[in-house]
Amino acid sequence: MISRRAFLSLAGASALARPSFAFRSTQSGPAIDAARLRNRLERLSYHGRPPGGTFADGVNRVAYSVADLTARAWIIDEIKGMDVVPRLDAAGNIFARFGGDPKQPPILFGSHIDSVPTGGNFDGDLGTFAAFEVIQAVQAAKIQTRHPLEMVVWAHEESTAFGVGTAASRIVAGDLQAGDMDRVWNGMKRRDAIKRIAGNPDQIETAIRGKGAWHSYVELHIEQGGTLDKAKVPIGIVEGIVAIHRYDVVIEGQVNHAGTTPMNERHDAMVAAAQLTIAVRDIASRRQGRQVGTVGRIEIEPNSPNVIPGRATLSVEFRDLSEQVLRELGDAVKARGAEIAKETGTTMTFTHASTNVPAMASSGVQAAIGRAAASASLNTMRLPSGAGHDAQQIAKLCPMGMIFVPSVGGISHSPKELTTWEACANGANVLLRTVLDIDQRDSI
Amino acid sequence: MISRRAFLSLAGASALARPSFAFRSTQSGPAIDAARLRNRLERLSYHGRPPGGTFADGVNRVAYSVADLTARAWIIDEIKGMDVVPRLDAAGNIFARFGGDPKQPPILFGSHIDSVPTGGNFDGDLGTFAAFEVIQAVQAAKIQTRHPLEMVVWAHEESTAFGVGTAASRIVAGDLQAGDMDRVWNGMKRRDAIKRIAGNPDQIETAIRGKGAWHSYVELHIEQGGTLDKAKVPIGIVEGIVAIHRYDVVIEGQVNHAGTTPMNERHDAMVAAAQLTIAVRDIASRRQGRQVGTVGRIEIEPNSPNVIPGRATLSVEFRDLSEQVLRELGDAVKARGAEIAKETGTTMTFTHASTNVPAMASSGVQAAIGRAAASASLNTMRLPSGAGHDAQQIAKLCPMGMIFVPSVGGISHSPKELTTWEACANGANVLLRTVLDIDQRDSI
Repeated sequence: MISRRAFLSLAGASALARPSFAFRSTQSGPAIDAARLRNRLERLSYHGRPPGGTFADGVNRVAYSVADLTARAWIIDEIKGMDVVPRLDAAGNIFARFGGDPKQPPILFGSHIDSVPTGGNFDGDLGTFAAFEVIQAVQAAKIQTRHPLEMVVWAHEESTAFGVGTAASRIVAGDLQAGDMDRVWNGMKRRDAIKRIAGNPDQIETAIRGKGAWHSYVELHIEQGGTLDKAKVPIGIVEGIVAIHRYDVVIEGQVNHAGTTPMNERHDAMVAAAQLTIAVRDIASRRQGRQVGTVGRIEIEPNSPNVIPGRATLSVEFRDLSEQVLRELGDAVKARGAEIAKETGTTMTFTHASTNVPAMASSGVQAAIGRAAASASLNTMRLPSGAGHDAQQIAKLCPMGMIFVPSVGGISHSPKELTTWEACANGANVLLRTVLDIDQRDSI
Repeated sequence: MISRRAFLSLAGASALARPSFAFRSTQSGPAIDAARLRNRLERLSYHGRPPGGTFADGVNRVAYSVADLTARAWIIDEIKGMDVVPRLDAAGNIFARFGGDPKQPPILFGSHIDSVPTGGNFDGDLGTFAAFEVIQAVQAAKIQTRHPLEMVVWAHEESTAFGVGTAASRIVAGDLQAGDMDRVWNGMKRRDAIKRIAGNPDQIETAIRGKGAWHSYVELHIEQGGTLDKAKVPIGIVEGIVAIHRYDVVIEGQVNHAGTTPMNERHDAMVAAAQLTIAVRDIASRRQGRQVGTVGRIEIEPNSPNVIPGRATLSVEFRDLSEQVLRELGDAVKARGAEIAKETGTTMTFTHASTNVPAMASSGVQAAIGRAAASASLNTMRLPSGAGHDAQQIAKLCPMGMIFVPSVGGISHSPKELTTWEACANGANVLLRTVLDIDQRDSI
């Protein structure tokens, strides 16, 4: 058994020389090139790799960062190298279409390449390059599809930037609010961020697509949980994507001197934020079910060891498949927040920052994924997605399905995120077969 | 009754035109110029004032910031304008000496002008310009003192920069550790920070002064607590300065996806930090006495709403007049930290970041302050200082005393920090009289 670290440190060598490893299909017909897939994943990992690190040290490629810009430039070149024409929409999403009857709606597939600040090299990246493989496998096999095949690299999926997740596919699905472009994050307006990636914020509404813009949408992604890994099942068929309710919480206390202010005269925003953090954990933990609750972000002011914090800003999010459960969790934490504010002499303001509705996968696409996996002799299991994905936005426009492959140890949004090359190749091959299966059907 | 805001918004006007307000001494003899004192406080407040703000909006003049640099340049010009020669030591402290027998040790007095990020316009600033007033009053009255009079502007008093408070007077007192100059804060080494303010980090040891370098040290400062304000006593005589024990705490958990990781499989560094914050509050509150405990700084990584925090860095500080109590508080929080780490599946590391020993004021200087206040018909009370001050460092070298004036509402380290102009003038006048009283004594 090779260690994870040793395994991953082998990666990177193949960025220069092709490895001998390749996916061995037990079936005839078109197949993806596992070595090329791995090679692209490795080459992408340089964009945002920590200084002095290896592939195993993960990536910081937050949307709109310099690493994101250089990665996108390379990806656009790579698409041109496949002899298809990349097209940017006003939100910065990268599309490329190949073959099929132009009168038919295209089959869309793809994922994203932006990461969280301490991300891994599989989240989004795998689905992106698997989409490349689908087009190149079809090209290599000289297959004439009925529907145009369209790949997509969504511009901004992680919620790090501007605190909004699936932000670019959200625009495509028509969820665009007045003022969205003027939100500020990291000293940058969202309109300027979108300009950085060659989008067009002044005509952002041109990125909106209508219902039926595509025949269907399929996304391959790592599971990011431990279900498939524990069950030793290579392919997951996603039943639906959980909803997220996210709140921005601002706590106002009283800045004061940490040496001269008695304990009972303090209005300490950090103490209130600490109590709220524990309340979120307790409220999410104490009921039956798979709901989760997280405080992932906090900033306090003035953030100096000798000053009682006067202000704290934090994010609270809950996830579950049930909207009703999410409302109850939100109500419970707001009620507890009011008590904490009273006890600590602070004020606490909850703003509903974003809501992702739950998105159900199309039964037709689920069935196609099942047939595709069976044709490759791969076992499957059905499961919900605890993570948000661009697929949940595109589900508003056309039938949607997702293919999951195992994450070792269930770790994700971490440099320790790991999906084996074999699992990557399995997933890409099932994506290819799913697309070709769907292509045979007028409706799914 | 004029509101605090209206009161302070009147300030600023006098930066252009001298106000009619002036301290009215009921005694004959040398006196400070209250209008000039106020004018200098107002002019200093421009360096680091928030954009669009007024005097009432406080100041952000953290040591080594651009605001600190411009303020120091102006102060040096202002000293030259008094016809005394400013001298910088290797730590960046600004000294200026006037009159007296050069064979006698000088009487030192002064304060600092750096602030916390959301500071007020009195902390340090008042004591600094009161020192100007002492020299100018002596000059105006053509008094020949026996000892040289030496004013000082300490370069770095607040613990915001590099997490070290009274940092520049600490060097003068000989507390200089190997590696101190290579500590990094805000992307800057401390040696480079000191170079920014025209210090000389390569010969930093030349700033160290021996015992008896000065005859005595007197510092005027706002109280930063509510004791004098509540008691309506204009002058506080400081008995001693409490000790501070400060810890840097690093909590290591496991970065993971906030959607896919079940509540009971998390190693959430933020949850552990929250529990520790509440433990600090509880441990400091539950015993009798005036000890205080604060978590004033926290940073979490990766600080993204959809990622379980994998790392938290926070400061814990306790203050009390008793070293024994401080050790017990530190032991209690470390013990509770170990329990929290176990419960949350994290590791928690405490590093003793800095320790200020308690410093007792000289009884002779306390008596001189008492006589000075009595001569100006001002009531006094004795009290400890809950805040750290440069005086506690210089107490290692010579007899030390501090004069406190009331802070309205006890608020400090906040833009709401307020000491009335009358109280400022009272304090400066008592400083002047104290220095002249001490000057008559060979030893104090």
